[in-house]
Amino acid sequence: MVAHATMLTIAYLGPEHTNTHLAAQRRFGTRSRYAHEPTVDDVFSAVERRRADYGVVPVENSLEGAVTHTLDRFIDFKDSPVRIAGEIEFPIRHYLVRPPSATLSSIQAVYSHPQALAQCRRWLRAHLAHKIVLLETNSTAEAVDAVLSHGRLHPTSPLKHVAAIGREEAARGRHLAAVPIADDRENKTRFLILSLRQPRRGRRHKTSLLFALKDRPGALSDALTPFKRERINLTKIESRPSKKKAWEYDFFIDFAGHESEPQVKRALRALQQSTLYLRVLGSYPTAKA
Amino acid sequence: MVAHATMLTIAYLGPEHTNTHLAAQRRFGTRSRYAHEPTVDDVFSAVERRRADYGVVPVENSLEGAVTHTLDRFIDFKDSPVRIAGEIEFPIRHYLVRPPSATLSSIQAVYSHPQALAQCRRWLRAHLAHKIVLLETNSTAEAVDAVLSHGRLHPTSPLKHVAAIGREEAARGRHLAAVPIADDRENKTRFLILSLRQPRRGRRHKTSLLFALKDRPGALSDALTPFKRERINLTKIESRPSKKKAWEYDFFIDFAGHESEPQVKRALRALQQSTLYLRVLGSYPTAKA
Repeated sequence: MVAHATMLTIAYLGPEHTNTHLAAQRRFGTRSRYAHEPTVDDVFSAVERRRADYGVVPVENSLEGAVTHTLDRFIDFKDSPVRIAGEIEFPIRHYLVRPPSATLSSIQAVYSHPQALAQCRRWLRAHLAHKIVLLETNSTAEAVDAVLSHGRLHPTSPLKHVAAIGREEAARGRHLAAVPIADDRENKTRFLILSLRQPRRGRRHKTSLLFALKDRPGALSDALTPFKRERINLTKIESRPSKKKAWEYDFFIDFAGHESEPQVKRALRALQQSTLYLRVLGSYPTAKA
Repeated sequence: MVAHATMLTIAYLGPEHTNTHLAAQRRFGTRSRYAHEPTVDDVFSAVERRRADYGVVPVENSLEGAVTHTLDRFIDFKDSPVRIAGEIEFPIRHYLVRPPSATLSSIQAVYSHPQALAQCRRWLRAHLAHKIVLLETNSTAEAVDAVLSHGRLHPTSPLKHVAAIGREEAARGRHLAAVPIADDRENKTRFLILSLRQPRRGRRHKTSLLFALKDRPGALSDALTPFKRERINLTKIESRPSKKKAWEYDFFIDFAGHESEPQVKRALRALQQSTLYLRVLGSYPTAKA
């Protein structure tokens, strides 16, 4: 939680009551104003146009990988003044939400967000091995709503018994049963905090870069060598299509350290030799694990 | 097209008449038997259980990036005997398919596969800038079917005028208008050919690797150095969650060359020093551009 004299406005990828909303609330507390936006692009725009002090968007899940819409927004708008001012790690706990009348073996269809369905693929295969239909919704909150309105909206549907994958809170006080979907794998989502402001210094920092390589053999190896030389620990590399030419890529790199540190400055100067384009997306305090 | 004495069975990610089907037909011709499978996992299984001689799955799109289901199948089943025996590049041409009665400005909703909707995001924003609802389907073929059945299945829906993004062929002979969605960006999908067989030698080859790095600073730089030293051109690097521990990654690398060439053998031996796990997924002829 961040203490400020004036009330902060936090734009986040909506709708309300999703994991992004909860992650934002955990960081910015109860004394901020929250504005949900329909798309990742709208969250960036809210920060760019100063309608919000901070934006919160998901960037990566520990099972499903990168949230490509968020990465691509940095590629598509290379001149945007938005910087990464922080990150939030948030544990994801999925529940199977169903009317008490629907037993596990009677369920014919499961509503949820595509990411949640993907994250629970293993559990669904083990526990609902009979043929079920997966129905995609825009959020896990919408999925739980869909369970309640299913019979009314689709009276002639052959699918009578439906469930949702969602958060436990969404089921409360609505005559729905929620059982946790147990999976031994660590399921966390990492969110970026976007801002035009410089973040305060923390104890440990992380820096995020976006760059395009010159087209020559060994370019990626040359790009990474300065980090090894300066003993800087890369925590992440992600390639994304440049969208200019097929099979050309831009790269996102995260490493431990702050852009103001001398060894980081030296590494960035050396990196510039192998890149066509290089942008520091931000140096910010590392999320506590 | 491949000539064989006996008829080949080709499993592909269905349903029928999708780009994967067309890409498979272009490579394996009219004298093969085609079997559509509902998921990427089922295509791999068909090859593993020898129900098919070859499998065809999408692996990457030039605008939207990696098809993560396909990459993750290699990670989730590291002991699978399936190898990459080839690749197919296929241009993607999207059409807006609508009943002749629906004008551009009257369209309220657009059905399509999430990848197609993502690839056409820019066009949709420019040409259907009025608020439209995006409705996801399992394939572009299903999206066109949905336009025809929309009024019958959802008689009370407030969305009267709907369209689909799909292939031109799907609209033919069905009283639907199809106009190409013009986008200046190169839109191609790359498909992998899966097999238990060794591919024939071609003129130019590509090799695909999957590996996990030892946890030490400079590990990724050390892993790439041997390729630079041997003047081997990396064409692609992709990181994916290991799914064992949050924020640990496995890497996919493609490079020019065949695993039987001496410089490739030397690079692979050196790479082994920085990896916990290393698997050659296949050496195969490069797709003609």
